[in-house]
Amino acid sequence: MTSQHEAWSELGQQLRVDSIRSSSAAASGHPTSSMSAADLMAVLMSKYLHYDFGTPDDPRNDHLIFSKGHASPLLYAMYKVAGAISDDEMLTFRRFGSRIEGHPTPVLPWVDVATGSLGQGLPISVGVALAGKKLDRLAYRVWCLCGDSEMAEGSMWEAFEHAGFHGLDNLTAIIDVNRLGQTGETMHGWDLDAYRRRAEAFGWKAIEIDGHDVAAIDRALAKAVETTGQPTVIIAKTEKGHGVKAVADLPGKHGKPIDDADAAIAELGGYRDLHVEVPKPELKGTPHTFPTTKLTLPSYEPGTKEATRKAFGDALVALGKARGDVVALDGEVGNSTYTEEFAEALPDRFFQVYIAEQQMIASAVGMQVRGWKPFAATFAAFLSRAYDFVRMAAISRANIALAGSHAGVSIGEDGPSQMALEDLASLRAVHGSTVLYPSDANQAAALVPQMADREGIVYMRTTREKLPVIYAPGEEFHIGGSRVVRDGDAVTIIGAGITLHESIKAADTLAAEGLSARVIDLYSVKPIDTETIRSAARETGAIVTVEDHWPEGGVGDAVLDALAAEQPHPVVVKLAVREMPGSGTPTELIAAAGIDATHIADAARELARAGATAGRTS
Amino acid sequence: MTSQHEAWSELGQQLRVDSIRSSSAAASGHPTSSMSAADLMAVLMSKYLHYDFGTPDDPRNDHLIFSKGHASPLLYAMYKVAGAISDDEMLTFRRFGSRIEGHPTPVLPWVDVATGSLGQGLPISVGVALAGKKLDRLAYRVWCLCGDSEMAEGSMWEAFEHAGFHGLDNLTAIIDVNRLGQTGETMHGWDLDAYRRRAEAFGWKAIEIDGHDVAAIDRALAKAVETTGQPTVIIAKTEKGHGVKAVADLPGKHGKPIDDADAAIAELGGYRDLHVEVPKPELKGTPHTFPTTKLTLPSYEPGTKEATRKAFGDALVALGKARGDVVALDGEVGNSTYTEEFAEALPDRFFQVYIAEQQMIASAVGMQVRGWKPFAATFAAFLSRAYDFVRMAAISRANIALAGSHAGVSIGEDGPSQMALEDLASLRAVHGSTVLYPSDANQAAALVPQMADREGIVYMRTTREKLPVIYAPGEEFHIGGSRVVRDGDAVTIIGAGITLHESIKAADTLAAEGLSARVIDLYSVKPIDTETIRSAARETGAIVTVEDHWPEGGVGDAVLDALAAEQPHPVVVKLAVREMPGSGTPTELIAAAGIDATHIADAARELARAGATAGRTS
Repeated sequence: MTSQHEAWSELGQQLRVDSIRSSSAAASGHPTSSMSAADLMAVLMSKYLHYDFGTPDDPRNDHLIFSKGHASPLLYAMYKVAGAISDDEMLTFRRFGSRIEGHPTPVLPWVDVATGSLGQGLPISVGVALAGKKLDRLAYRVWCLCGDSEMAEGSMWEAFEHAGFHGLDNLTAIIDVNRLGQTGETMHGWDLDAYRRRAEAFGWKAIEIDGHDVAAIDRALAKAVETTGQPTVIIAKTEKGHGVKAVADLPGKHGKPIDDADAAIAELGGYRDLHVEVPKPELKGTPHTFPTTKLTLPSYEPGTKEATRKAFGDALVALGKARGDVVALDGEVGNSTYTEEFAEALPDRFFQVYIAEQQMIASAVGMQVRGWKPFAATFAAFLSRAYDFVRMAAISRANIALAGSHAGVSIGEDGPSQMALEDLASLRAVHGSTVLYPSDANQAAALVPQMADREGIVYMRTTREKLPVIYAPGEEFHIGGSRVVRDGDAVTIIGAGITLHESIKAADTLAAEGLSARVIDLYSVKPIDTETIRSAARETGAIVTVEDHWPEGGVGDAVLDALAAEQPHPVVVKLAVREMPGSGTPTELIAAAGIDATHIADAARELARAGATAGRTS
Repeated sequence: MTSQHEAWSELGQQLRVDSIRSSSAAASGHPTSSMSAADLMAVLMSKYLHYDFGTPDDPRNDHLIFSKGHASPLLYAMYKVAGAISDDEMLTFRRFGSRIEGHPTPVLPWVDVATGSLGQGLPISVGVALAGKKLDRLAYRVWCLCGDSEMAEGSMWEAFEHAGFHGLDNLTAIIDVNRLGQTGETMHGWDLDAYRRRAEAFGWKAIEIDGHDVAAIDRALAKAVETTGQPTVIIAKTEKGHGVKAVADLPGKHGKPIDDADAAIAELGGYRDLHVEVPKPELKGTPHTFPTTKLTLPSYEPGTKEATRKAFGDALVALGKARGDVVALDGEVGNSTYTEEFAEALPDRFFQVYIAEQQMIASAVGMQVRGWKPFAATFAAFLSRAYDFVRMAAISRANIALAGSHAGVSIGEDGPSQMALEDLASLRAVHGSTVLYPSDANQAAALVPQMADREGIVYMRTTREKLPVIYAPGEEFHIGGSRVVRDGDAVTIIGAGITLHESIKAADTLAAEGLSARVIDLYSVKPIDTETIRSAARETGAIVTVEDHWPEGGVGDAVLDALAAEQPHPVVVKLAVREMPGSGTPTELIAAAGIDATHIADAARELARAGATAGRTS
């Protein structure tokens, strides 16, 4: 063993010791899952990772993502070694108010994305690596530490497939094959070949090593750097809890501090305070930028008809031409979501993710790590496939725009599998999210540029059917706003998307009967225009909400929430889809669901005539 | 070509013709995606599928699942050939009110599960095959027709992994490699070897064939039946739109009827009306049953503390002993969800699905196809990984029970990645779902048996922390009910799970101040006990809801919905988690989120003292 090898082994021991110390101080955490990967990370950070901890935003920095986020004690121990955090701060692990959280989150400047929901770090790493190759066009590398348990997640194989397909030789995955999951042995135990066969089948270079042999680790990492044209996976046989007999390779030791920490630390050779000068990025250059022109949004003639999904696609091209940082991703339905126009006009910034919605969201999250502004699109129903990725993206403080087409029963003949009827509910319930549901093509186009500037998860629900254009081109619409499209004082009808147009028809019917209904276009479902809704409540005393969505969590519930503390309070009747739809024409299906103009007029008429105007003050 | 081969080829042509006829009649649908697989299905249904269309519930029947659900015209054409539906009914494809829906759903008795969200049929097939091997112990086979595009979904590789792991030689997947997706070529085009390498790496027998050569299809299917110890995949090179030059192997022909249907039908040799006697099941035997004993639910002493997740685990064992049809699945966190007790007591009915939540739900759906009663458990946060599977399970009219542990910020130190804060919202927004959130161990135990008898998706949210036992063992709790645990008339506090206990503490504080607060235990969030809430609204005039969940779509919104039409209407104040949490103790985190007793008391006091009692009638 050379002195270099000895130094790395010493560093590995320190990383183990500190993983034990921090988790013991916290009385919780995952020391044994950290100890298995300590030698791998010791060599990586000493020689291969190029990263300036002083300037984490340096675009030339490599990226290190812990897909096995529960090995956070190891990550924080590495930060201490690099001089990024103090020993004292490291020991605040898991304490209230500390940024040294149970699983890594970007409250720390060196953490790109939150991990801890297994199977997400590698797909996101693919996104960062794609950004490096295709957008930044910088030679930074992405290193991803994976657990063996998480190889059971299909999302890992989406990542393997996409990295192989794109030949991402700037990506190295390191699988810490410590054999043991939370409750027992993994499917493949220490059968490294099982992982190798799979990885090779997906087009990766695979290297099997003893993950506690620092010389072997060194050689494998060197090989990964040398390998061109394909990503590399280092499949490392390790021991969970390596170095401490009381826990090493034993079941039942997951996710808990080590019983006798002092003895364990002694067994590991005691406390050390080694520091490492992590190599700084050596490469030259600045991130690639794309040429831009002035923003010219598309416009649609009032009185004609257009689908908001088409307006979204048109506006995304316009935005992409005006902003070089905007990129588009699609789940192989670009001729439905209309991202095909972006693909045609700006092919260098379009990413075909095929039918892999988890990888699509992960790629978007990875790209925004590097400051790109991703718009990811598919059928709204299929965004549900990536719901955990969206949830985690919010914890990552990621800024991504999502577009979901084909919302609701009004898509017609394809039937319920293709109908998003829960998207408003699920995406409203994402922390810090924005949920838009435009009713008109000019409005949709006006909102698209704002999506790129908005923080957090910004979702636009678009409609398959062509809808009447009711707003003038160039009219301003702001996130958080609404529009009163018909004034009236007998009752208020609140719709969005296709149901706004049914609401207008209903109001026209009621007007002919001498009943004046106010109609509100709730194109911004979250944030919601509370003031306009409250005014309507006060002035009309009764509200009908109507949505092409299940009754839970959508437009109606957003309105009820806005009125929770309102006194006097209007009667609110929610029209929504309440029975499982089948196939049919859009007209048949919205009628059957009770959300068409006839049902709206009936509900509004009943409310107004029953004098259900308890809340009315005018 | 033998006469048998000629007959199969003729049948293939008829299936193509009828796929064109039905989609032309509907003016929508996917004829070209049906035509590619027609020869494969012609041979399968003529010789290998053993299925009695007259008794679809015969447990000895094989199962045929179209993972590529958009090839529904082909499936319906097969039903016609088998005599299950008439030509007239086939031609009602996609019409309103017809059971011949755009994508297959179990409104048809021969359809096991709804498909149309790609990447789900194969994982569900794995579930059915597992039921055959491990539960029914019958030799029926599962045949799954897969698209090549959907091979990009990670869930397909979860299925490959699990089928390989369990050696499911009763499962045959047939990949219809027609090269073309919705918008263009797939990642692998006609590179059959790409699929073969992957499948073999995952432990499958793989057979490459020309999918239009009926003799080759015959040989491959025979080989699949012969193969033991591993599942078989037939990788069939096919042409999208095969047989009709105007569309064959051309892009831009996805998901639309054929322009000149008459010419296409003529090119295919014209209309035919062949019928096939699909082989009936030959195997003997009846489904295995497991021995049972009397139900003895666990009980917990009032005044002690226990976690509802533990009570769930205890009750599940009791239920499993009493009902032989109950099975449990877990995502490798059984020592957290406490399904480990079931695994220990009833190992033959426990399925370790490792960290593959999509496969877990798919397996549950597959098992309930055969009448088993699956309970699938993981951290509630990670159920979000399988949200699309749950959405589709509802369309499948599946009866499955889900248990999600570790809800909310009150899990403490692990941090936000492990905290379910959107599960109530997302699972309430599933059609026909039931959402339970018990507050007490005896209550949780009492609800578990009801979960097995309830139709649809039945979710129980459990709590990590030990909570005071407040109800007596044996007390009855019904789905749809609630409990008034403190009476009072100044204000109502509604909580569930951990927040019920904070609500009780708050009520005690308020009582000491002379303020009488009613406290409602909303253990059944959906369906909700509207009457009790309305009574409280009328009698106390003001309501505080409190939940360990984001503000959207949970307890508060369920209460607001129940009160939508209530007049006079109480002021409702919703306490919920509004900022992204970090790590900390449960006590620190519920305080920081503003959902602890102090914040509840403050909110209730303010409401009561401000005389916000507009709705009060008593």
